[in-house]
Amino acid sequence: MNPDIIKERQNATFDVEKLTYVLDGGLEKTKRRREIESMVFSDPDFEEEDPNFLSRSERYDQAVRKSAQMILKLREYGIADPEEIYCYKTCVNPDRPGPLDLHLAMFLPTLLNQATQEQMDRFFMPTWNLEIIGTYAQTEMGHGTHLRGLETTATYDPATQEFVLNSPTISSIKWWPGGLGKTSNHAIVLAQLYTQGNCHGLHAFIVPIRDMSTHVPLPGIVVGDIGPKFGFNEVDNGFLKLENVRIPRENMLMKYAKVEPDGTYVKPPSAKLTYGTMVFIRSLIVGESARALSKSCTIAIRYSSVRHQSEIRPGEPEPQILDYQTQQYKLFPLLATAYAFSFVGQYMKETYHRISGDINDGDFSELPELHALSAGLKAFTTWTTNSGIEVCRMSCGGHGYSRSSALPDIYVEFTPTCTYEGENTVMMLQTARHLVKSYRQAKAGQQLSGIVSYLNEAKQHRVQPQPVAARPTVVDINDLASLVEVYKQRAAILVELAAKSIQQEIQNRKSQEDAWNNSSIDLVRASDAHCHYVVVKLFTDKLGEIGDIAIHSVLSTLALLYALHGITTNSGDFLQAGLLNVPQVHQVSVRIKELLSQLRPNAVALVDAFDHHDKKLNSVLGRYDGNVYEHMFEWARRSPLNATEVHESFHKYLKPLRSKL
Amino acid sequence: MNPDIIKERQNATFDVEKLTYVLDGGLEKTKRRREIESMVFSDPDFEEEDPNFLSRSERYDQAVRKSAQMILKLREYGIADPEEIYCYKTCVNPDRPGPLDLHLAMFLPTLLNQATQEQMDRFFMPTWNLEIIGTYAQTEMGHGTHLRGLETTATYDPATQEFVLNSPTISSIKWWPGGLGKTSNHAIVLAQLYTQGNCHGLHAFIVPIRDMSTHVPLPGIVVGDIGPKFGFNEVDNGFLKLENVRIPRENMLMKYAKVEPDGTYVKPPSAKLTYGTMVFIRSLIVGESARALSKSCTIAIRYSSVRHQSEIRPGEPEPQILDYQTQQYKLFPLLATAYAFSFVGQYMKETYHRISGDINDGDFSELPELHALSAGLKAFTTWTTNSGIEVCRMSCGGHGYSRSSALPDIYVEFTPTCTYEGENTVMMLQTARHLVKSYRQAKAGQQLSGIVSYLNEAKQHRVQPQPVAARPTVVDINDLASLVEVYKQRAAILVELAAKSIQQEIQNRKSQEDAWNNSSIDLVRASDAHCHYVVVKLFTDKLGEIGDIAIHSVLSTLALLYALHGITTNSGDFLQAGLLNVPQVHQVSVRIKELLSQLRPNAVALVDAFDHHDKKLNSVLGRYDGNVYEHMFEWARRSPLNATEVHESFHKYLKPLRSKL
Repeated sequence: MNPDIIKERQNATFDVEKLTYVLDGGLEKTKRRREIESMVFSDPDFEEEDPNFLSRSERYDQAVRKSAQMILKLREYGIADPEEIYCYKTCVNPDRPGPLDLHLAMFLPTLLNQATQEQMDRFFMPTWNLEIIGTYAQTEMGHGTHLRGLETTATYDPATQEFVLNSPTISSIKWWPGGLGKTSNHAIVLAQLYTQGNCHGLHAFIVPIRDMSTHVPLPGIVVGDIGPKFGFNEVDNGFLKLENVRIPRENMLMKYAKVEPDGTYVKPPSAKLTYGTMVFIRSLIVGESARALSKSCTIAIRYSSVRHQSEIRPGEPEPQILDYQTQQYKLFPLLATAYAFSFVGQYMKETYHRISGDINDGDFSELPELHALSAGLKAFTTWTTNSGIEVCRMSCGGHGYSRSSALPDIYVEFTPTCTYEGENTVMMLQTARHLVKSYRQAKAGQQLSGIVSYLNEAKQHRVQPQPVAARPTVVDINDLASLVEVYKQRAAILVELAAKSIQQEIQNRKSQEDAWNNSSIDLVRASDAHCHYVVVKLFTDKLGEIGDIAIHSVLSTLALLYALHGITTNSGDFLQAGLLNVPQVHQVSVRIKELLSQLRPNAVALVDAFDHHDKKLNSVLGRYDGNVYEHMFEWARRSPLNATEVHESFHKYLKPLRSKL
Repeated sequence: MNPDIIKERQNATFDVEKLTYVLDGGLEKTKRRREIESMVFSDPDFEEEDPNFLSRSERYDQAVRKSAQMILKLREYGIADPEEIYCYKTCVNPDRPGPLDLHLAMFLPTLLNQATQEQMDRFFMPTWNLEIIGTYAQTEMGHGTHLRGLETTATYDPATQEFVLNSPTISSIKWWPGGLGKTSNHAIVLAQLYTQGNCHGLHAFIVPIRDMSTHVPLPGIVVGDIGPKFGFNEVDNGFLKLENVRIPRENMLMKYAKVEPDGTYVKPPSAKLTYGTMVFIRSLIVGESARALSKSCTIAIRYSSVRHQSEIRPGEPEPQILDYQTQQYKLFPLLATAYAFSFVGQYMKETYHRISGDINDGDFSELPELHALSAGLKAFTTWTTNSGIEVCRMSCGGHGYSRSSALPDIYVEFTPTCTYEGENTVMMLQTARHLVKSYRQAKAGQQLSGIVSYLNEAKQHRVQPQPVAARPTVVDINDLASLVEVYKQRAAILVELAAKSIQQEIQNRKSQEDAWNNSSIDLVRASDAHCHYVVVKLFTDKLGEIGDIAIHSVLSTLALLYALHGITTNSGDFLQAGLLNVPQVHQVSVRIKELLSQLRPNAVALVDAFDHHDKKLNSVLGRYDGNVYEHMFEWARRSPLNATEVHESFHKYLKPLRSKL
């Protein structure tokens, strides 16, 4: 164990283990998580070569091998709880997505939700036993978020009682679905349904794409891998071009909408039914943000405690780089953010489960708010995490660029969350739509409930920005409740400003739609402020649940740092709205420096509490024992370019060059 | 040609070709650049497989082949001007660093600058003819920016008249030098010189590391590749462990400092001599920022003009995504930034050449200012560009994650500029040191000249933040000269605040050094504001040189957008300092929206003017002809995972799995 890191741990003022329980949601959960981790990490069947040393094809091969093993073991051990499966999976391919992910997370659940009993009888067991390996093919080369724009067609032919599927244009080729390129032999294809001469919009069809026995693509199917990406090397994201592919009528998923044998279309009873899954996945992504950011902070903070560099006082030994104020200012607000997002992730999971119950009972009343909240928080947390990972990486100096640090991998595996499951700007605008609607309801005298209820108070605010002096200031920058209040007021004012901007545009004879587009910068800003408020509020609320005094104290410091740091980085908003005055903003900067010093002795303990197993971090910089350099050397020597002493290019190009010059 | 992009070009209000001349520095320069580009791009010897389809070893191999070809061709064509060589090189491995870069850019120049005549006679011709291939080995595993911390030793043994080189610890292993792992047979090694029992600090030694004929590492040399990185796949960044390696006394570079045969150490005459190269490279990096950002903007803006998505008005066709205000707000400020940095890059190059002349005449007076400026602007431009590339990438939706977009590659090849040649935070603090020193000189009544002369006016400012009302506001947000003035005042105030913070700390009985560290957040902020001011000023100055009315008009719009966007993103600073009042900040937001609409018709023409050749962009999304989808499909089909219809992993793992479940 590195002596620096031992000393860091001795300096902690709280019980790390107890904080881990808080993060996991209780002692029992921590215990079970560790059990599962040890199942995987002690299992020789899951040993792997560092993927960074492999070619793309080898990486895919290794991932298929491990995923197949995983399916076997999960059955063997009888692990069936979705959360436990998820935990197991993230250890098998440590936090890398795998080739069977869409089979498990999209194909199977869609079948369960949308198949008729007859379809279940035909498809479920083969799918469960991986004879059918499926994916979910929605996005097309030219079409993403906007579902109505999708071009793939499924035209019903009553003569043969078949659907004929086609990709009518290049832009209609299915593009991006995970596992589509090489792994799957079936796909649930989203296509515009045509029958009796009418288009009935998007519906889902089960389409066999490869021969079940030989795995060769079926006639009319052009399928393949979409090529290398920024990360996701283990996944064969694929393309699918359909050329007059015929499938039986019974392969349309018909639990809700139907096409009868004669071609008559029968409408689904409600459109809200598929809404829930989307909300669920976005809520999960909030938790993913917390995990990616906490891993990055773990690596950067542990490394900063063992790395010595430059000098603060001349003549003295090089200090730990964690002692530089600039380094603390990079990392500690991100550490606070990782904690904030962990608690927001817990909240989203709980809320989803609570509301799911209501939905199953036919009560959809809370769904719009959860939908808006999950959209905005997905965008807010992934954007923050995305840039935060890179701050962590660059805070490690040169070694942050080495794949051995794991930080490049964390970044490339995480960054797609900003785009998939709803592009972030689109997500922010969805939340804004809910906020503006709620604002108008409040203005019309309706009493709002839930998290947007603060918009009820909007009337009290003056719309126009006003000089600081006009607003009496009662904010206490050391009091979290008071800070929650300013964040709330900032959100309320920015929602109002966005709504007024739309109104102004309409007064300038713009259509509703153009007015919306011309106000979208303000709308995104309002959503961002709303989400920021929610995060500060949920972090503060969480403190109320913490009984342990030492843990309560350190978490309060983090929460305060989170809130104050958000104020300095958005100080214009708070000043413009007259919520804080100039001396207060200055005090906030001073206070932040104090908080950095206050957190310094607990920094390593705070990342230890995330309890990321060394095998899961897979980072020489972030090792628990702090023995960085010897392992970096050992890792480098195993690198494939060192397999031979002399690279063949010397004999092929460099030596012959001499005689030519 | 895609009809959307044709229409975009028809809408332009200015002559694209003429703006290209402005960016290149004149018609002649544009002509010569295009000649060189066409030499490379029409040369079959430089054809390559897309590196994204190759393994690391194959990428390295291809790069060595092309680099060797390049050396031959440069000699053949007699291209010797450094700028032309640079231009040629960036076409050979389009904007990717190569394995011979350090030989050409560090080993050879260091020899020229620091070798004695005798050493030139021995080493120059073999180096010129690539019998000697060299690198420059400075950083160690445990030591980066802080040169005094380097641990490698060179101990003089007068008995044999040799130096004995050693890596005494693991952390002292040379780590990161490009071309060290596999390519080089010599290294200039920076080591602590010991002679007659004393350490004389860092000196440079020419160390043979591989046999000139077999390329096998020499005795006592442990050398290899440091393993895969985030980008830089073509470069064999290496490690070097020295175990009692003996080199003749004459292999120490002795143009300045010397060790005599008996071991007597002779001091160098001046320390400033190596200063210049560092400044030169940092100045170049400013230009690199402009190039990387302009490439990213080219890709994102062209793609946004052919991509249609979602709807603004229901029922109408999907609009070009460039019509969304949020998309414009992401991309146009970055476009303005790319222009700003291009002009700053020009300025830095000119200033460097001007001051170089003075230095050669023994006049070092302007060097400290240029040193401070190049450090800060290197950090300022690379940080902005680093995050800007990612904004561009993510503005392309899912396809921005495909390697075919080129954006992932631009990012990973660019991001190291934030760390190498001086870590950015360290750079900002170096600039801050110059600013604080200048501030104190001004306060002491000295009259400052040059770019920091605004600190002369510091006395007029009130230090304490003050309410808005107290400062009479005369700022015209539509007048660039007026905006340069506010940026200047912001910088002056933040420098003063940082200086006062140090003073405050010292009053609290902190040492000078601790006071500096405890003020470093403020110091970085002051440097940032200083650089921001310089960029706004240089962009504005550049407008004075533009004769063409149409070009002057569009560049003025860009400059205004750049300045106003900087105000909104830092509005807290301007409000806090009382430089702008609340209604003005609100007006700035409104004005920005107008500027976005104003730039919309010229957006594609403005990126066309950067004149990035399709072969250099190497992006299916950024193609000049806008024919994105067909080329994306064609690219994907060439991807190695599609070489076979069925991947072997199906037979190895997936099919056997069925029988086990």
